[in-house]
Amino acid sequence: MIYIGNKNVMSYVLAVVTQFNNGCEEVVLKARGRAISRAVDTAEVIRNKFLPNVQIKEIRTGTEELEGEGGQKISVSSIEIVLSTKQ
Amino acid sequence: MIYIGNKNVMSYVLAVVTQFNNGCEEVVLKARGRAISRAVDTAEVIRNKFLPNVQIKEIRTGTEELEGEGGQKISVSSIEIVLSTKQ
Repeated sequence: MIYIGNKNVMSYVLAVVTQFNNGCEEVVLKARGRAISRAVDTAEVIRNKFLPNVQIKEIRTGTEELEGEGGQKISVSSIEIVLSTKQ
Repeated sequence: MIYIGNKNVMSYVLAVVTQFNNGCEEVVLKARGRAISRAVDTAEVIRNKFLPNVQIKEIRTGTEELEGEGGQKISVSSIEIVLSTKQ
């Protein structure tokens, strides 16, 4: 599982490529809020430029409740992109 | 098909709810780049707050090539979220 935050896309691409090169058959990208588009970018760059044998197996979305500064609840969307090597 | 751009999430939620109320069984949200997270927000708000009988049938991602101001090619990630009413 790789959490996508505010770093640039290539940092995450490198982390994913490393995991697959270490023998992982499945890597899950997880992101919340504005980082969701970065997670999709990461998956697309991996598939199109680095690991053409990797496919998107599943994409799940959800809503998480966070606590704001004043204690109020904030709903934030999340995404999980499951990448896996083709059979 | 509803294109998600820079408006606030509730504008798109309203557009989707209207389509389902008009009898559509399937509505596709499409977004590019930074609007991708807004598309996920829209789908989550619809499912959790407005139309609990609507489910996410499929999520597809892709890469589109746009032409930049100087004529150079820019790759932009895209997402399509297929919403449908439960059987």
